[in-house]
This record gives sequence, C-alpha cells and structure tokens, in this order.
Amino acid sequence: MGIVMKGAEAAKAIKEELTGEVADLKAGGIKPCLAIIRVGARPDDLAYERGARKRMETSGIECRVTALPEDIGQKELEKEFSKVNADPCVHGILLLRPLPGTLDEEPLKAMIDPQKDVDGMSPVNIARVFSGDETGFAPCTAEAVMEMLRHYRIEICGKRVTVLGRSMIVGKPLSMLLLKEHATVTICHTRTADIAEECRNAEILVAAAGNARMVTEEMAGKDAVVVDVGINVDEDGNLCGDVDYDAVEGKASYISPVPGGVGSVTSSVLAKHVVRSAKYFACNPR
Amino acid sequence: MGIVMKGAEAAKAIKEELTGEVADLKAGGIKPCLAIIRVGARPDDLAYERGARKRMETSGIECRVTALPEDIGQKELEKEFSKVNADPCVHGILLLRPLPGTLDEEPLKAMIDPQKDVDGMSPVNIARVFSGDETGFAPCTAEAVMEMLRHYRIEICGKRVTVLGRSMIVGKPLSMLLLKEHATVTICHTRTADIAEECRNAEILVAAAGNARMVTEEMAGKDAVVVDVGINVDEDGNLCGDVDYDAVEGKASYISPVPGGVGSVTSSVLAKHVVRSAKYFACNPR
Repeated sequence: MGIVMKGAEAAKAIKEELTGEVADLKAGGIKPCLAIIRVGARPDDLAYERGARKRMETSGIECRVTALPEDIGQKELEKEFSKVNADPCVHGILLLRPLPGTLDEEPLKAMIDPQKDVDGMSPVNIARVFSGDETGFAPCTAEAVMEMLRHYRIEICGKRVTVLGRSMIVGKPLSMLLLKEHATVTICHTRTADIAEECRNAEILVAAAGNARMVTEEMAGKDAVVVDVGINVDEDGNLCGDVDYDAVEGKASYISPVPGGVGSVTSSVLAKHVVRSAKYFACNPR
Repeated sequence: MGIVMKGAEAAKAIKEELTGEVADLKAGGIKPCLAIIRVGARPDDLAYERGARKRMETSGIECRVTALPEDIGQKELEKEFSKVNADPCVHGILLLRPLPGTLDEEPLKAMIDPQKDVDGMSPVNIARVFSGDETGFAPCTAEAVMEMLRHYRIEICGKRVTVLGRSMIVGKPLSMLLLKEHATVTICHTRTADIAEECRNAEILVAAAGNARMVTEEMAGKDAVVVDVGINVDEDGNLCGDVDYDAVEGKASYISPVPGGVGSVTSSVLAKHVVRSAKYFACNPR
C-alpha cells in the first residue's frame, strides 16, 4: 500500500509558511491582493473561483473579482483588463480560462504585467520557466506538483521521471521545473508508441493527460511515486484522476488521490505567488 | 556501417529552397539582409562570422558586420544595438555570444525586435518555441538538427528520442521542436543516474553535451540514428564531437560526423531565418 500524498497536508504547510510573510507585509502597510477576472459564469470557473477566494481569505489575502458579461466585446474586455493590470493595489491577476469562444486571450497574455502574472500565462514568464529562471511564475498546477513532491520529501535529483501530457498548463512547464531539480525527464503523449513501457520505467510518474483512469496497474512501476494531475468525470458522473487509483495504490510507494490530491494544492500555490508578488512590489515600488 | 548524414547535403537542399525565394524578394525590391554584431575579436566569433558571411553571400543575402571594440561600455553597446535593431534595411540580427565578461546580454535579449531575432534569443521567441508556435525563431543549431533529420527522412513521430544536454541553445529548444513532431523525448544531463541506459534506449540519439567523445559504442542502441551536435577539441588539438564516431558508426543506422555534420547546417538555417524574416517584413511593413 502506497503512502497517500494528501493535498491538504501540502496546502497546510504552505499556508503556515505564508502566515508570517502576510503578517510582515501588513505590518508594512501592504495588503496582498489577488484580482480574479471572470467572463460569464461557467460552473467550472465558479467552482475554481470559490476555492481560490476561500484560500486567499484563510491566508489573509484580499480577493477581488471582476465579473464580466459573457457577451462582452474584445475591446471592452481589454479595457477592463488594463484597469486591473494598472491598479497599484492589485499584486496578482488570475484570468479564468478558457474565455468564451468569441474572445481572444492572446492580447491579454501579451498585456499582463509579468510581475502580476501569478498563473504564468505571459510569454515573459513562459520564457523564464523554460530558462530555469526562478523569478518566473510557473502555472500554479505545475508548481503544485512540485510542492507535493517537496512536502513528501521525494528525491528528484537524478530520478527517471515520466510526464504524461505536454500541455502548456502542466506537462511542459512541469517538465522544466523537474529538469531544474535535475530529474531525467521523459515527456509522453498520445503519439508515444509504448506509453505503458514509458510509465513502467519511471521512478516518478506524473499523469497529466486528461484521460480518466488511463494509468492501469500494469503501467505503474513497482514502488513508483505516482502523482495524478487529472481531473475527469467518469461515466457514472464521479470525479476521478488519470490514474486507476484502486489498481495502482498497491504498487506505488507514494500516490496522490483525486480528489484530495494535487488539485487541493493549486490554490495554495496561487496564494504563495500573490504574496511573492506583493513582496516584490514592496521592495520595487512602481 | 551507418549512413553518414552529411551537413553539406542538407545545407545544399536548404540553399536550393532559398534561391527562388530570394529571387522573388529581389524582384520586389527587397534585398534580405543579416546584421552581425560582434564585440571584440575572439577567434571563435571570427570563424563563425566567416562561415555566416560566406553562406549569406552564396544565398544572395546581404551581410553587414558591426564590429565593436572589446572594451565598449554597456550603454554604448546598447546604443549601437538599437541602431541596427531599428534599421529598416536589416531583416535579421545575429549577436555573437558570449559577450566579454564585463557586458550583460540580458538587456539586448529584451530589446531585440522578435521578428529580427533570427537566432532565437528574445523571450518572445523562447516562449513561442516552448509553446510549439511555429512563428517563433528557434536557435539555429537546434533547428539544424531538425533539418538534418528531415533531409535524411528520419521519421520522428512516436519515436523514442534521447537528448543529451539541456542548454538553452540546443537541448531545451530542440526537445520542444522534437515534441512538436510528436517524438517521445527524454532529456538527460550530467545528473542523470544512468546515461548509458538512456542513450541505449533511444531510437534517435542527439548528443549536445559538450563532452568530447562521451558517447561510446556501448551507449548506442543498435540501428539508432545518432546526431552529434558537439564541437570539442580533443587532447591532440583535433576537432571532435560528443560521439566516439569510429566506435559508434558500425552500430548506428545513420550518424552525423564532426566536422561536416550539424555544424555545416547551422548557417543555412540562419539564411533561411533571414529570408523568412524579409518575407514577413515585405508583407507587414513597419
């Protein structure tokens, strides 16, 4: 039976780390503030927003929401975005994505102040993460995986890590974060010839493919660390990950569940990024 | 005996492809132009400059060199760089690097017009290459490997590719270019626990570690495609690659030599980038 990697545990550790920093900032007259920008009211976005608000609240971070109508025009969206972007009280901006199909997020990626880009969508942060420059913000989900590994003291240096999935939200940036910690990283995807073999070969396996329970028992290496980033809904309407948890847990040395795994760490990373940004602005006022 | 992948062959194919495009541009009154910026006179830089000039010449591309004194100040360098950057006759800029130790190349990376950044040093191009956006310029050496594979019709999709080295000039961007072509990519480096095993496991092995003849016979897989990006000088003063060519050639299905391999393709990729940029400016005048 593998040790269960609980997202709540990693999140709690981050929160404790942040408490002192937030207190210091407030003593200096600065209240860290996250601005969430939401267009329309997709249930996914509302759920994520609720989680983020709650996390900011418990960490002493202000959270403002700019809710824009679903039928907003591109120009108007950019105008509203600019206002938040320029607001000196805002230290971090989270744009809930994807935007409705009529809108283009590319101009917003180019526009966002890289220092406020706490979910790493700006090309400046993408380039920094790719370069291994730690001043860059990586997407929160990618970094949540690193926090989970760190919290459970999983050694990364020199280890064979297989990353399933090559998205810009998880697979690619996570591969760069792992590489920075000296892992030997293999990136797999739908076109990989023998996914089972690549997975079995991994000492640490990160599943971020968006494919319900695709990692079966025979795909997990003995005593592997298995981190599940997938959030899927199965045919019975239940939330599940990319890993067949019940089948794999007996083989893994560590395993993260869904729900209650990486997903629970993401909003804590977001809080950490907002505090980091607020500290930056405190030292480098605009 | 593996088939020798000759850089000159791949370079010739690129040149032929460019001839018509350069003629079309000239018919439209546009002469593609590369500006090389060199600080000091390091022998490495002079050799690279000579190769690039010659390649531009034979491709009908103008090549200007701005040679700056080794003791130039940062401010002055940035001023000279700005001039070239703003010159509407210049379509591509190649800054010879590394700069002398007293100078900082970071401001130049941020400053360079991404459309003129034909060797991919701007964060904009780095982010594009990382994102798989083909409008980005990848570093010429990384793309030279892709041209070599393409010229010899090596199938990449679904193949296991091991990249030795994680630099921003070759290893990382090349991994992204390979991933875009649906390879399963493993990135190895000095901290990899079992480099020999990772190399042996590869159907395509790219050595870009900067370590003379480190890839020995026992590290090459049977019938692997072996691409050598290393340029080293051995203890006898001879140029050699990262692969022990004599030992590996019998095992490989394809193998690129050093010299005469990837290095001979790099300046052709540079020419291709300058032409692409000139075409862009022809359609999108500033």
